Amino acid sequence: MKKYNVAIVGATGVVGTEMIKVLEERKFPVAQLFPLASARSAGTKIEYNGEKIMVKELTESSFDNIEIALFSAGASVSAMFAPIAAAKGVKVIDNTSHFRMEKDIPLVVPEVNAHALKTYNSNIIANPNCSTAQLVVVLKPIHDKAKIKRVVISTYQAVAGAGKAGIDELAAQTAALLNGKSVTPKKFTKQIAFNLIPHIDVFFEDGYTKEEKKMILETQKIMEDETIAVTATTVRVPVFVGHSESVNIETITKITAQEVRDLLSKAPGVEVVDDPQNNKYPTPIEVAGKDPAYVGRIREDCSCQNGIDLWVVSDNLRKGAALNAVQIAEELIKQKII
Amino acid sequence: MKKYNVAIVGATGVVGTEMIKVLEERKFPVAQLFPLASARSAGTKIEYNGEKIMVKELTESSFDNIEIALFSAGASVSAMFAPIAAAKGVKVIDNTSHFRMEKDIPLVVPEVNAHALKTYNSNIIANPNCSTAQLVVVLKPIHDKAKIKRVVISTYQAVAGAGKAGIDELAAQTAALLNGKSVTPKKFTKQIAFNLIPHIDVFFEDGYTKEEKKMILETQKIMEDETIAVTATTVRVPVFVGHSESVNIETITKITAQEVRDLLSKAPGVEVVDDPQNNKYPTPIEVAGKDPAYVGRIREDCSCQNGIDLWVVSDNLRKGAALNAVQIAEELIKQKII
Repeated sequence: MKKYNVAIVGATGVVGTEMIKVLEERKFPVAQLFPLASARSAGTKIEYNGEKIMVKELTESSFDNIEIALFSAGASVSAMFAPIAAAKGVKVIDNTSHFRMEKDIPLVVPEVNAHALKTYNSNIIANPNCSTAQLVVVLKPIHDKAKIKRVVISTYQAVAGAGKAGIDELAAQTAALLNGKSVTPKKFTKQIAFNLIPHIDVFFEDGYTKEEKKMILETQKIMEDETIAVTATTVRVPVFVGHSESVNIETITKITAQEVRDLLSKAPGVEVVDDPQNNKYPTPIEVAGKDPAYVGRIREDCSCQNGIDLWVVSDNLRKGAALNAVQIAEELIKQKII
Repeated sequence: MKKYNVAIVGATGVVGTEMIKVLEERKFPVAQLFPLASARSAGTKIEYNGEKIMVKELTESSFDNIEIALFSAGASVSAMFAPIAAAKGVKVIDNTSHFRMEKDIPLVVPEVNAHALKTYNSNIIANPNCSTAQLVVVLKPIHDKAKIKRVVISTYQAVAGAGKAGIDELAAQTAALLNGKSVTPKKFTKQIAFNLIPHIDVFFEDGYTKEEKKMILETQKIMEDETIAVTATTVRVPVFVGHSESVNIETITKITAQEVRDLLSKAPGVEVVDDPQNNKYPTPIEVAGKDPAYVGRIREDCSCQNGIDLWVVSDNLRKGAALNAVQIAEELIKQKII
């Protein structure tokens, strides 16, 4: 079996670290791994398959010998270096928002639109927003069966979505408050320990945040259907890892809760945990470190004709980021694109 | 000015304590305060207006000399003792769910349906569920202006809603986890520290929880309009005090975000905090200890013709419980019902 030289851009970040772990776990055919980072992190060592590998500084020549590059070092880094790598023939799988909505670049969740890899034939492939990835694997089977008209989402997003600084801030603030000390927000706009912040990414004129717009536009692009109406309210919660979503779905044709349960039980990338009488519904700490999008609280919405309410929880570093990126790389091999 | 003998049933609980504080703060015309509780808590002392008052055991004769009784000691206590007090002519304001949906008993949020106190003419008056109270003060002005068709709510509810045991569990679990110890849930079904639990109160056959049904039915009863379609997903979050709600509202006639902002700025019991470009939106720690329902993130919903998304946060022990109960008592005086 052919093996590939794989670069990880942002190898020391929360998502980069998870990418390396996922490559290892899934026995991805890596010939040689090239962890890359900013000058500040270069020189540190990461571990891959029991081997310690030195992190090198990201430069233009970093991609000379590379076949696949997984980027997760921020939109500005992707904006500058992804086109350089792509021009050298590297397949770039980019976890930032930079290229997601560009019309020549596919935005891929393999369970939903793996075929887009071939139809777009682009060296840059975008990985969706974490909240979107775990949503579309759940929406897709429902859309195929009953055609989705409108989706109303409220999110409960973990601090890991804001990287290491987000995790550190929740831990430090919680410890300070339990010791009777006051806290000053740094990474987030307000205290996050024992609090909620209805603000993720920047605000637009119309009152939506960029995170909310991402969920709306990326869902339509991945589902390849701009008629699906979506609104979202995204909220940061004091949870370390694992994004949760309260999702209300209106369909064109009637679908029962049991039909949704049956459909999702067979859906790739989805696991149904829905036995509320026995306290079975997914929660963030139970799904951390796991791959699927977990779905529970599936019920018919009493407020409209064809409505379904449900609750989706997934490890935002896995399906929401690292796992989906590696799955895209696997699809490139499977489809013989690389 | 006439003063009244006031009994507090459940005087040592989280809501009972807050009721005594609110009576004091608002200078409610109390002749004598009678704190009542179970035999287990009887004998302890509470403080009211600088005076220490012994908590007495709740018995049938507790109400002989009472004019107003505020109940917050659980549904079974209300079921047994509220009718006894009412039969003695006491005005009972009950904070439990026991009487809320009974057709002869008014369910009152003074800003919304104070007139119900006169039309029902009942000695028992029900105080709504915490999540409902803070919602209806926001919905009412919008309904009056644009007629609400449907509301989709996702809640983010603080542990104080589960009483002292809920608060203790969040604190103890958080401390244990920060010290590297494992935790075993007692009050809640799962770990609540750094986690979310999409389960408040018991489950019904149709998959909704009782908390969700309360929000649906109580909203319709208080708003006096059963045509308002409501669905809710209620979630416990690791926040000590202050319930938050992501609310999506569809109206019959178009209403702009600015119109909603203007309406709510003038609405009683509501305070608009909505300047997202300057990080102004309400969060639980900022509203704890305060009276109004705070509203922010007001925007036009891009997913439907006449839709509004907004974010409501309020201290669940105040407007959601103690404050609303005392406001009902004030209304009884104002309307010369007592």
